[in-house]
Amino acid sequence: MLAEIIAVGSEMLTPHRQDTNSLYLTAGLNDLGVSVAFKTIVGDNRKHLTAAIRIALHRADIVLLSGGLGPTEDDLTRECLAEALHLELHRDEALLNGLHHRFAARNMAMPPNNARQADVLAGATLLPNTNGSAPGQWLDTTFEGFRKLVILLPGPPKELKPLFDNACKQRLAATLPKNHLARRILRMALIPESQVDARTAPIYQQFPDVETTILAGRAEIQLHFLCVKPSLAEAEARVDAVLDLVSTEMGEDIFSFNGESLEEVVLLMLGVRNHTLAVAESCTGGWLGERLTAIPNSSRVFLGGAIAYSDCSKTALADVPSYLLEEHGAVSDPVARALAEGIRRRTGSTLALAITGIAGPAAIAHGPDAAKPVGLVYIALTDGEDTQVKQLHITGDRERVRLWSTQHALEMLRHYLQ
Amino acid sequence: MLAEIIAVGSEMLTPHRQDTNSLYLTAGLNDLGVSVAFKTIVGDNRKHLTAAIRIALHRADIVLLSGGLGPTEDDLTRECLAEALHLELHRDEALLNGLHHRFAARNMAMPPNNARQADVLAGATLLPNTNGSAPGQWLDTTFEGFRKLVILLPGPPKELKPLFDNACKQRLAATLPKNHLARRILRMALIPESQVDARTAPIYQQFPDVETTILAGRAEIQLHFLCVKPSLAEAEARVDAVLDLVSTEMGEDIFSFNGESLEEVVLLMLGVRNHTLAVAESCTGGWLGERLTAIPNSSRVFLGGAIAYSDCSKTALADVPSYLLEEHGAVSDPVARALAEGIRRRTGSTLALAITGIAGPAAIAHGPDAAKPVGLVYIALTDGEDTQVKQLHITGDRERVRLWSTQHALEMLRHYLQ
Repeated sequence: MLAEIIAVGSEMLTPHRQDTNSLYLTAGLNDLGVSVAFKTIVGDNRKHLTAAIRIALHRADIVLLSGGLGPTEDDLTRECLAEALHLELHRDEALLNGLHHRFAARNMAMPPNNARQADVLAGATLLPNTNGSAPGQWLDTTFEGFRKLVILLPGPPKELKPLFDNACKQRLAATLPKNHLARRILRMALIPESQVDARTAPIYQQFPDVETTILAGRAEIQLHFLCVKPSLAEAEARVDAVLDLVSTEMGEDIFSFNGESLEEVVLLMLGVRNHTLAVAESCTGGWLGERLTAIPNSSRVFLGGAIAYSDCSKTALADVPSYLLEEHGAVSDPVARALAEGIRRRTGSTLALAITGIAGPAAIAHGPDAAKPVGLVYIALTDGEDTQVKQLHITGDRERVRLWSTQHALEMLRHYLQ
Repeated sequence: MLAEIIAVGSEMLTPHRQDTNSLYLTAGLNDLGVSVAFKTIVGDNRKHLTAAIRIALHRADIVLLSGGLGPTEDDLTRECLAEALHLELHRDEALLNGLHHRFAARNMAMPPNNARQADVLAGATLLPNTNGSAPGQWLDTTFEGFRKLVILLPGPPKELKPLFDNACKQRLAATLPKNHLARRILRMALIPESQVDARTAPIYQQFPDVETTILAGRAEIQLHFLCVKPSLAEAEARVDAVLDLVSTEMGEDIFSFNGESLEEVVLLMLGVRNHTLAVAESCTGGWLGERLTAIPNSSRVFLGGAIAYSDCSKTALADVPSYLLEEHGAVSDPVARALAEGIRRRTGSTLALAITGIAGPAAIAHGPDAAKPVGLVYIALTDGEDTQVKQLHITGDRERVRLWSTQHALEMLRHYLQ
């Protein structure tokens, strides 16, 4: 079964707007064993849209359309689909009353144009939209002698996603051959994609019935395993089999087995080990703190820290002695060490991380750090007894140096906690 | 002139990968007065791709293809285009030698498959790719009696973007009717899109020859004005005319007239006014510092600050008296005030910002902040003489409350500096 997704809307043909609905719909279709073979993006243009629908009906079994169900003259999806399939549109009285009620509830008269949202294709089933005024439509029909499923969905993601989940997936599952899906995600930080592929390909290639995808994310690599079988037990057994072998191969490089983020894993481990954490950040300027506090309940183990960006703030907020800054420069092993130890003492945390480095784009012009290269970063981790310091050379632009610095700090902490 | 962009690659038909090249290509085409009418995404499948190319040649004047130029069996764009246009492919000797040299330089033998990257369509002009091994190709041809421009581009954005800029834009400009483009971007924070539209639509609608786009970004609204005319002076005059009227209407809500970010504007104003800044962040956990330090040279005016996440870190790093925390709770006007004043004294900055709030998802379970709603945020700004505090109720999820808190803080500072 092949699907095509058509995203309707002229704004998606500008440099500013992307069709993102299709990623969500693709995930849902894949879960049901349906592959997406084509995606088309077309503007609010009657001739273009009608032709694009005909092309999709020719080459796909399932056609999903998103957008163009609103009340304005530009919203043409219903009309174009009726034209492409030579079907009548009729105005649904119950829907029309509902629209009038929506406006009446806000003490407004309904503009006549809005009545078009009550137009239904002959033979279509209405899919209730609890987050907007235009319902979806489901059409099980034939085109040039072949059976086709056509699904109309509203464009706004807040309307489309629940409507697809609640009104379409069950219906699709009932229509399609029965299948069960198992999925697992492994995540690894700070390792090149080519190395992950070289080490794991000999394993996952022995499992042709498990779809394996390697994704390079932001300073991490994800391995997605997906298997569709007539029974759930069978699908899970296959995914678990490849997962076991890959886990043995990659070992401690794997930070998460079920998709959790590195921040979540580290916060969980801190809690389990009864630790608290503070940070002192120079070149990352608060990014490490931002990442940790993005996770709800991080306050259980994360106390806070210093954005020790200037030399004076390193001294004022983390008690870095000025002679260290003068002798070694802010980007140095002794200053990283002093930042971690200082912020730990100040906050009373059990553990502390510090980051100091040269993020670029330019090297530092004068002073004790002047000769040091862009990308040089020191990370320190202390538990009050021992302090480890790592020296790194991170390639890339300012954003990459900063992001990878936070990732290295989290990985250093994870390995310590393991 | 209508264009279609075809993105080739099965990975873009998964839930994980998006075609982003087309946004870049669309911007470049729009600059030349060419509209994109269709975008198609198709996998590495000979039958599907050949058919998609034929459809594009039917409905568009310019067809751009990205991806599928690599050396593997899956890279089919050259072959499918040859089939769709009934053109021969010939192996280019100079290109082939270049490929052999690339491998020899790395002391490797070239796998035989790679020779396919030297295959050139009959009549095509080669577009040199300085960042990869597969060149682009430019074909000025006819399809069913109509003139068509077909452009083949490599898929990796690092190869496609410079190749399009350096080898295609000039060629396209020479082929297309002469046009000049003027563009301006206005940015506003913390204002609803509907309000911007209601206030500016009566103005920009009087300029039908200026294309106006309203974009809702992350806690900001952008207004893009674009005008294409036979002369640059004419295009700029029209864009400036609408810009003047809109600027008068929106006044101080506009933070930038040439696309600069709010962080950049604030850092620039701090420098001009000889100010330095420190921050104390509770619920945002370092995000405000991260945003400011993402900008190169922010160290000239930004000193750093405290990630004052826990109560004890508020006291230890920003000298917030414990009785204030006990009496009023951490999320309160007096604590916001004390955080700003405390971090200013500690760092010796001339100005300081503080943020404290309840980011959610859940309200705080016990203690003096227990009765306060999610989204309650206090922002304080001090210059040592006066301290202003703003109480806000921000709707939305944890990420939105945190992002909008940083945006409110930057806007408060911008208004102070103006």
